[in-house]
Amino acid sequence: MTEILQERTMDVSVRDIAERAKSASRLARTLPTSIKNKVLLSSASLIEDRVEVLRAENRKDLEPGKQNGLSTAMLDRLTLSDKAIKSMTDGLREIAEQQDPVGEIAREWTRPNGLKIAQMQVPLGVIAIIFESRPNVTIDAAALCFKAGNATILRGGSEAYHSNRALASLFREACDGCGVDPNVVQALETTDRSAVGELLRLNDLIDVVIPRGGRSLIERVVEESRIPVIKHYDGVCHVYVDREADLAMAEEVAFNAKVQRPGVCNAMETLLVHEQVAGAFLPTTVKRLQEAGVEIRATDRVRAVLDDGTQIQDATEEDWSTEYLDLILSVDVVPSLEAGIDHIEKYGSHHTDTIVTSSEENAKRFQREVDSATVLVNASTRFSDGQQFGLGAEIGISTDKLHARGPMGLADLVCKKYVVTGNGQIRE
Amino acid sequence: MTEILQERTMDVSVRDIAERAKSASRLARTLPTSIKNKVLLSSASLIEDRVEVLRAENRKDLEPGKQNGLSTAMLDRLTLSDKAIKSMTDGLREIAEQQDPVGEIAREWTRPNGLKIAQMQVPLGVIAIIFESRPNVTIDAAALCFKAGNATILRGGSEAYHSNRALASLFREACDGCGVDPNVVQALETTDRSAVGELLRLNDLIDVVIPRGGRSLIERVVEESRIPVIKHYDGVCHVYVDREADLAMAEEVAFNAKVQRPGVCNAMETLLVHEQVAGAFLPTTVKRLQEAGVEIRATDRVRAVLDDGTQIQDATEEDWSTEYLDLILSVDVVPSLEAGIDHIEKYGSHHTDTIVTSSEENAKRFQREVDSATVLVNASTRFSDGQQFGLGAEIGISTDKLHARGPMGLADLVCKKYVVTGNGQIRE
Repeated sequence: MTEILQERTMDVSVRDIAERAKSASRLARTLPTSIKNKVLLSSASLIEDRVEVLRAENRKDLEPGKQNGLSTAMLDRLTLSDKAIKSMTDGLREIAEQQDPVGEIAREWTRPNGLKIAQMQVPLGVIAIIFESRPNVTIDAAALCFKAGNATILRGGSEAYHSNRALASLFREACDGCGVDPNVVQALETTDRSAVGELLRLNDLIDVVIPRGGRSLIERVVEESRIPVIKHYDGVCHVYVDREADLAMAEEVAFNAKVQRPGVCNAMETLLVHEQVAGAFLPTTVKRLQEAGVEIRATDRVRAVLDDGTQIQDATEEDWSTEYLDLILSVDVVPSLEAGIDHIEKYGSHHTDTIVTSSEENAKRFQREVDSATVLVNASTRFSDGQQFGLGAEIGISTDKLHARGPMGLADLVCKKYVVTGNGQIRE
Repeated sequence: MTEILQERTMDVSVRDIAERAKSASRLARTLPTSIKNKVLLSSASLIEDRVEVLRAENRKDLEPGKQNGLSTAMLDRLTLSDKAIKSMTDGLREIAEQQDPVGEIAREWTRPNGLKIAQMQVPLGVIAIIFESRPNVTIDAAALCFKAGNATILRGGSEAYHSNRALASLFREACDGCGVDPNVVQALETTDRSAVGELLRLNDLIDVVIPRGGRSLIERVVEESRIPVIKHYDGVCHVYVDREADLAMAEEVAFNAKVQRPGVCNAMETLLVHEQVAGAFLPTTVKRLQEAGVEIRATDRVRAVLDDGTQIQDATEEDWSTEYLDLILSVDVVPSLEAGIDHIEKYGSHHTDTIVTSSEENAKRFQREVDSATVLVNASTRFSDGQQFGLGAEIGISTDKLHARGPMGLADLVCKKYVVTGNGQIRE
């Protein structure tokens, strides 16, 4: 029995999986859009048809999860609820409708010697996705990568093992039904943690790694990977209220950025206010935030402009670089636009930052000098999102500078190659 | 004395250098194009004015180099000859004339809610360049990175220590003369090898690492770096002569790709010929290559179509993936276009490959299925080059897929950020 198990493990070594993915990616590279869309739509139908099987597999994860004391939030993310399933099937159908980026010519020109140079969008190749408890990532990520002509290796958290496996298997069934090599999507089905380390060294077979999860997961991947990694780190997002701000607008933007959905990476974590408007702006805004349940952590400069009775905790040095993902907000008063930008550059995570101002000059300066993936003027930080930008489904919000920065959709899951056409040109 | 030295070393720790670069990059980000060009032109003049000082510093490297038995080729690359100096000053003046990519809007659109979304080109930030014996890289790389608004940390080989330091110092002097923080260009001036390892872990301060040199240097950087690396690996480049090829054109293209400059990464290393034209094509082409001094390594399939007397060495398995950088060529005959593509995908380095064919269908298939940075039709592989593409000076030819692929010039030394302008939009 041990021998058989060992053989089975050998059968599906991490390298074997990566080699199958590489081979499948060569086929995926040239698949017509119509076939890719057929697979996506067929996956959506299969998920709907097999919802009971999926739930049964999901329960195999949820029960030990409860026994092992997973938090309510984690169990919630692990559950394939009606809403989670609808979001997957909606996502598949939406991705089927999105424009296929493969084969598009980004730029094209002709040289004096007659050579025609073009930059063509082509798939990246093999993408490894390493993610934590949400099983829906299996479908969301596989579908986006597949539409962009890539093969995907998925490695989910062990707590979602059965759910991930069932979802990947449905996608593979849909491929098979459409005559597509199912190895375009493979789940790395082992609970052996060293498998990830092995995967991260296969830079001859895998083109990109995208970790989706908390900071420690991403840091581990960066530390171990020889394959380029696209990172989606925290959002320590700021709203800066300028001296020239429309204060009613600033209050709405700040309130929305903090309260509308505090648990996501594009929610505001720090509010900075120019000292000349702090007295007019902060008392009502802080009161409104507190009434919405927001805990305020601030400096004496903030306290000085508030009503005597307002209870405010001190902001520590650590607060300024903390992503609360909760109804907590750090607040400070700054003497100038420059000081506001300095604060953001020093403590921020270069994810998403907003200025509220009526001065075009100050807006331009903020947009130029704040080195973040998304820099907004007079709008809530919550708009830093693929759907809100009109990019369609997103694989995450990249905090990297190379290749993809900010909301990352289909268009970032391809790369470019130079395609050059001549009629016998040689170099002198 | 030891204490003073220790203090001096502490003064310029690797982290200090990176922090200075980060701070300089914030200023460089917003420099007007005119000031940047002034620095570049002033550097060129300074190099011309101080040519004797440069040569004296260069001799401090060349003499120990000779004593330590550096090869003629290495000494040649190390020498600041008239030609090397002219190439640097020409490069500086050319980069001054190139269009500044910073601030350009790549795409722009408006959402139904009135939000204006734009992708703006902005500098990457801090770029570390780790390179081997050519001191001219100090100027070429610093100038390109600077024009794109970045700060650069240069770490050259110890054998070019004095030359690199003198060149970096001239560039810094030019900055100073134009009122620009000289820390936009810093040389990591220590012969301590562990300094590079330390540098490669500063992912909080450095945005990109570009190693320029041989495979082992690049591999070491990839292994140790926590910072994203843009790689410029070998070129194992192919010319495939299709069944439908104009054979006279194929001969010119193959001869040029191999012989015109064999020591560079975009020279052909392997020639593949469709079996139906092998008999008509190979005898004269092989003879012409041999007459030009090219050593042929081939299979029995090639031997079978050559004249009896032709001396041909066997190609080993290793030959197919070797970058000779020399007058050596591996040759094979393949039964089909598909087999040619399979060979290239299996053994090639995904750098540059050419098909010679009169069939548009075969050309398209080759361009679609060969997964290389540059794929050419009916032109020499030697055109895979920034100057030849009209991109201007290049920092190298990237064999990566992320961010930059193929000849990498100014336009690849920036990244994009989302710049969003609203009038008070909040999310529902």
